[in-house]
Amino acid sequence: MRRLSVLGSTGSVGSQTLDVIRSKRDEFELVGLVARKASEKLLMQAIEFKPLYVVSYEEPSKDWLTSLPKETTYVKGHEGLMQVIEASDTLMNAISGVDGIIPTYHILTKNKRLLASNKESIICLGDLVKNKRGMILPVDSEHNALFQLLSFVSKEDIKKVYLTASGGPFRNRSIKDLKAVTVEEALNHPRWKMGAKITVDSATLMNKGMEMIEAINLFDLSVDSIEVVIHPQSVVHGIVELKDGSFLFHVSQTDMKVPILHALFYPERRDYPFERKNLLELSPISFEQVDREKFKALYLCRWVAEMGGAYIPALVGADEAAVEMFLKGKIGFLDIANLVEDVLSMLNLPDPENIEQLLYIISWAYEKVKEVSERYG
Amino acid sequence: MRRLSVLGSTGSVGSQTLDVIRSKRDEFELVGLVARKASEKLLMQAIEFKPLYVVSYEEPSKDWLTSLPKETTYVKGHEGLMQVIEASDTLMNAISGVDGIIPTYHILTKNKRLLASNKESIICLGDLVKNKRGMILPVDSEHNALFQLLSFVSKEDIKKVYLTASGGPFRNRSIKDLKAVTVEEALNHPRWKMGAKITVDSATLMNKGMEMIEAINLFDLSVDSIEVVIHPQSVVHGIVELKDGSFLFHVSQTDMKVPILHALFYPERRDYPFERKNLLELSPISFEQVDREKFKALYLCRWVAEMGGAYIPALVGADEAAVEMFLKGKIGFLDIANLVEDVLSMLNLPDPENIEQLLYIISWAYEKVKEVSERYG
Repeated sequence: MRRLSVLGSTGSVGSQTLDVIRSKRDEFELVGLVARKASEKLLMQAIEFKPLYVVSYEEPSKDWLTSLPKETTYVKGHEGLMQVIEASDTLMNAISGVDGIIPTYHILTKNKRLLASNKESIICLGDLVKNKRGMILPVDSEHNALFQLLSFVSKEDIKKVYLTASGGPFRNRSIKDLKAVTVEEALNHPRWKMGAKITVDSATLMNKGMEMIEAINLFDLSVDSIEVVIHPQSVVHGIVELKDGSFLFHVSQTDMKVPILHALFYPERRDYPFERKNLLELSPISFEQVDREKFKALYLCRWVAEMGGAYIPALVGADEAAVEMFLKGKIGFLDIANLVEDVLSMLNLPDPENIEQLLYIISWAYEKVKEVSERYG
Repeated sequence: MRRLSVLGSTGSVGSQTLDVIRSKRDEFELVGLVARKASEKLLMQAIEFKPLYVVSYEEPSKDWLTSLPKETTYVKGHEGLMQVIEASDTLMNAISGVDGIIPTYHILTKNKRLLASNKESIICLGDLVKNKRGMILPVDSEHNALFQLLSFVSKEDIKKVYLTASGGPFRNRSIKDLKAVTVEEALNHPRWKMGAKITVDSATLMNKGMEMIEAINLFDLSVDSIEVVIHPQSVVHGIVELKDGSFLFHVSQTDMKVPILHALFYPERRDYPFERKNLLELSPISFEQVDREKFKALYLCRWVAEMGGAYIPALVGADEAAVEMFLKGKIGFLDIANLVEDVLSMLNLPDPENIEQLLYIISWAYEKVKEVSERYG
């Protein structure tokens, strides 16, 4: 029986993980549920799944605590996180943003199996990720697809690895029109329903650029061996081109529960227990080139991947702040990448040697964006 | 060094095999070239490649024989075939039609490695093929693709295997219009340039139906686990759907040299040495359902696959004759499947127990079609 915990259980990926677990309930012992807030949703999850531990970072109310099932112990914040990690053998880190870095750090340091959905930690903790590769199973659809495809072939037979990008809501807009994009438009992603930050990152392709760095860390690839292509239908999640002229595609309906199911049971495969699209419903499939000028963020990420070191946490911190400013209406859509670029060009910090230095660089870049953005808007 | 022979070297797949060998010349010892006619083309191939043996079934002229390189011995007909098989460790059987059955029989019986391009022999020699599975590498693009994909996954994880069909030149025609199809129209295949018989078989989907039986024999699949889908662009050559919601596609440009290269070097992969299309050039990709009424031949083959035994050689013989009659303008396009069906319904022969009985059933069905077709046209 898998001793599993879900960090970020009330978010989109966390909730869908619990949907999959519900359908295969007797195959898991649910050790811990971890979320930022002691919300109604977390309470409901605890009542349904009766985990050993429930953890929130914000203080719960008395009522909330007394409503917990008798099987479940509440522990607050970081102490709770550490107890959950200790008691689990596998942890899904579905916390979003930079808050996911410390959990990934402790999960891997304690040699637990990581089902990796938090992008920022995989990007920033490159050396740790590379050392613990055998303990990490990517959950996000692109990396899960590549994980599968790359396991089928020898590394020396690979000519190129493609990451697919839906192109977001602005695929067909001219760069001129992108200047005037509203927050509402940027949040209207055509394929996936996600949080605000990642939806904006998908519209700028910053998300895809970060996924490129993730792929480099997860699969030990060179920057040159990865190419991003626009694939508006979001059903081909990964492509590997082999030197002998073959391409392998990993395809599935636009549905996070498919890679979650794979990651939860790997190396076995289980029946997908939800509604399934057939092959004809996944047609047609098309690919387009990325417009370099329009999606500057992608090329910025390529450059950051080449630079490595302090540039990676700086990218994460700067983008976090820039997207926040855009969402508050303080800067324009195209300013996001420009602002991140400006701040990265000011970077003059040594490469981080520990997690404290890493977090410092993130917050340096975050604050610097706020400062520099005075000039924008 | 691979001791390789090419049977049917002057045909389309045979010539392309030599194109690939030319590009990797020092990796092969070319043992034999075998063709029906002692043509100018066979002579040119012998002069260029200097095989140990050259074999034709028809008598060569004196001039032809004296033009052979001094390294090459000429042996006529079946005796030549047997010497070539004996001296090789791998043989590409690219002979088209029923003439390929005896060569495949002897190649497998003598435990040589078969690069299988002849469809009829794989269909008709089901038991032998099943017994020698480890010695057979399929060369035709669909089966080569499935061979690769099926090697990546466990059999119990497979939900369905898809064979793709371009749909031929009549994909968008109504069944009413199909009645009046001319020979010229049927020979105008939109994607592949091939011989007349296989081009007509592609237009009726009889070819795809036979490929379905081939897949059953090659990969030990059930009839129910295989589905044919129309894929007009002919770049996705095989699809495996897994029970967990994943689909794996094998994709390559419409070019026989890709599977030939794979089969020649398997289990290694080599650089594709010719002009290569990029991913964007393979876009868009679409799938459609097969029209049951229009492509009756496909469902006839499904039924034959269920029946097995004598029905399989009878299908091969009957189709050979029916296509011949169509090409001579004696029957209409839709009559091909009807005529084959009529003759199969008259079949009253025991299952073949040896190759002579097998060949007898083929010729029985062939003659029966000629007889029954008097009623058509």
